[in-house]
Amino acid sequence: MDFTVHHKCSRYRARVAEIGTRRGAFETPVFMPVGTQGSVKSLTPEELKEVGVRILLANTYHLYLRPGHKVIEKLGGLHAFMKWDGPILTDSGGYQVFSLSQLRTVSDEGVLFRSHLDGSRHFIGPKDAMAIQEALGGDIIMTFDECVPYPADYEYVKQSVKRTTRWARICLESKSKKGQTLFGIVQGGMYRDLREQSALDLVDMEFEGYALGGLSVGEGRETRNRVIRETIGLLPEKKPVYLMGVGMPEDIIDAVSLGVDMFDCVLPTRNARNGTLFTGAGRMSIRNARYLDDDRPIDEACGCYTCSRFSRAYLRHLYMARELLSYRLNSIHNIYYYMRLMERIRCAIKEDKLKEFRDAFLASQRNGLEHSLEEH
Amino acid sequence: MDFTVHHKCSRYRARVAEIGTRRGAFETPVFMPVGTQGSVKSLTPEELKEVGVRILLANTYHLYLRPGHKVIEKLGGLHAFMKWDGPILTDSGGYQVFSLSQLRTVSDEGVLFRSHLDGSRHFIGPKDAMAIQEALGGDIIMTFDECVPYPADYEYVKQSVKRTTRWARICLESKSKKGQTLFGIVQGGMYRDLREQSALDLVDMEFEGYALGGLSVGEGRETRNRVIRETIGLLPEKKPVYLMGVGMPEDIIDAVSLGVDMFDCVLPTRNARNGTLFTGAGRMSIRNARYLDDDRPIDEACGCYTCSRFSRAYLRHLYMARELLSYRLNSIHNIYYYMRLMERIRCAIKEDKLKEFRDAFLASQRNGLEHSLEEH
Repeated sequence: MDFTVHHKCSRYRARVAEIGTRRGAFETPVFMPVGTQGSVKSLTPEELKEVGVRILLANTYHLYLRPGHKVIEKLGGLHAFMKWDGPILTDSGGYQVFSLSQLRTVSDEGVLFRSHLDGSRHFIGPKDAMAIQEALGGDIIMTFDECVPYPADYEYVKQSVKRTTRWARICLESKSKKGQTLFGIVQGGMYRDLREQSALDLVDMEFEGYALGGLSVGEGRETRNRVIRETIGLLPEKKPVYLMGVGMPEDIIDAVSLGVDMFDCVLPTRNARNGTLFTGAGRMSIRNARYLDDDRPIDEACGCYTCSRFSRAYLRHLYMARELLSYRLNSIHNIYYYMRLMERIRCAIKEDKLKEFRDAFLASQRNGLEHSLEEH
Repeated sequence: MDFTVHHKCSRYRARVAEIGTRRGAFETPVFMPVGTQGSVKSLTPEELKEVGVRILLANTYHLYLRPGHKVIEKLGGLHAFMKWDGPILTDSGGYQVFSLSQLRTVSDEGVLFRSHLDGSRHFIGPKDAMAIQEALGGDIIMTFDECVPYPADYEYVKQSVKRTTRWARICLESKSKKGQTLFGIVQGGMYRDLREQSALDLVDMEFEGYALGGLSVGEGRETRNRVIRETIGLLPEKKPVYLMGVGMPEDIIDAVSLGVDMFDCVLPTRNARNGTLFTGAGRMSIRNARYLDDDRPIDEACGCYTCSRFSRAYLRHLYMARELLSYRLNSIHNIYYYMRLMERIRCAIKEDKLKEFRDAFLASQRNGLEHSLEEH
């Protein structure tokens, strides 16, 4: 993997870079839509390309349980299975093992857990996480980490960071395939010294990229931004930084300013399925009765397929009628919105106008949020 | 509307014709996918065009209840609302009023019923059915008819036929818009003389097309084919015949042989959502474990988007994981299958080889059905 910084912000740590993978290059800051089970819900690979998606995230935990990584490997890997020929990042399964599975027991070797699907017993340790990710064949893969709850006791997090470091080393040592790029995941809860410890441990191992895990768990914006700022300062500038599971457009802009290059979140697709749409003026709840006979598109300024064809009235009708097309058209719009947002962010960095962009964006969002409140 | 017969079968009553509407022409025998609530479930208008759909059916009852025909009229009619610029046929609402609504009371004036959505009270009579269909703006519209249950008492059906005839006359008289073509619906249960009475009554009124209603309600293949045969013999040869709600590929081939020109059915889309796929060798249940790692397409001979891209293994995975993309890819395949089936039927009529086609088709289906049984 290549990582080349092309533009730096004069005021913030923000930058525009290019990441080159064996399956093509993309510019950062980048947003990765989530294809949890080998599908970005309701959309085809062609549609993802069309709205500007360059890299997807897929969840190791889900694909390990169903249909199984061996099945996917036999079928030529995840790219062939889901017919997405661009880059894929797979997470390590750590996050889902800790958030979704039942009756889990953590030891220094890994995690024993029961499947959230059928209660079956499974064990995943760092070597297994690597073997599964190698079978899936993602272009960027992640170390196996322990995600501690929030808030968490200092002593527990301290032990957990040691475990995460140990697991990261095992992942690095057991990685057997070329062409896959391994990122290390910094943990440490909200404790400055533990984040520092975790970051230094991982930097020592010289990963090709670094992720910030264990954030967006309820800690609040100030705390999150503090942790991001403190941690990024310890990571090598010439490596990409990936903030896992974040998030809202405003959170992404904050994090970009702090130096983050990569993002993923289920928000655009999950919101789409809940009828919440992103617009230049803030969020819109398409189920609102005011849209019953509104023949305007979601956002007059949006160039997506949905906005170029369908009215709010039709989209509201599809949503109220629980039509499958609703989830699709809403997802196309929201992902397009995120892709355009990242493009505008990159543009602002290139022009060294990130502050101006951020101020204008937050002002438009404030209007939008008031607008949303009024709606309900 | 123009109806021009181009080819006639020498052995059967089957024919290939062209129906010209204000929104374009299409060849018959034709199959109309069902866009119940203004959407063929999960698909865009572009996808429908791409798989060869030329005319859609939409349900008056559903659109009357939600979002309401007045709303759709205000937004420019159903074509503008759902962005389908080809022909649309709307049913009269009769069938759904009798099959879906609650606590209905039939009188000579119409039907008082409660909405299946919220229990609200509504009344639809023949004039209302016309007003609603004129507001929706379909290109082919239907008279309001009473659908009797099966089996039904002779005396009840006799009275019902009188009512359906009376309503048909009111529909004809209250029709106020040009450009919309009105079809009359023949009822009469399974009683030969009542079907005859109904057919003669309607033929007297000189509708532009005739539908056979009240079939595919559990009467069995032999009875259905007898009723179709007896009724079509009484209808003018130079008008199209539409068999409502039928059906399975083999039923369609039977009906085409008896002289039917138009069909609609939820089967291809409903089966798609249940994981039942049509193939050249019969039906396939994609959830079957045998497809876990099967890298072949649903049907090697199929040229649809789904078959050209995705494996049975991926489609099984999407189905088992309840992914929204599953319903979509399956629907594309099944509608494509139906469009191709109709094309092959038209081709066989043009070559005057319908019997050969029918024999070969039924033989392939018999294999297919055995194959299906073996699967479960």
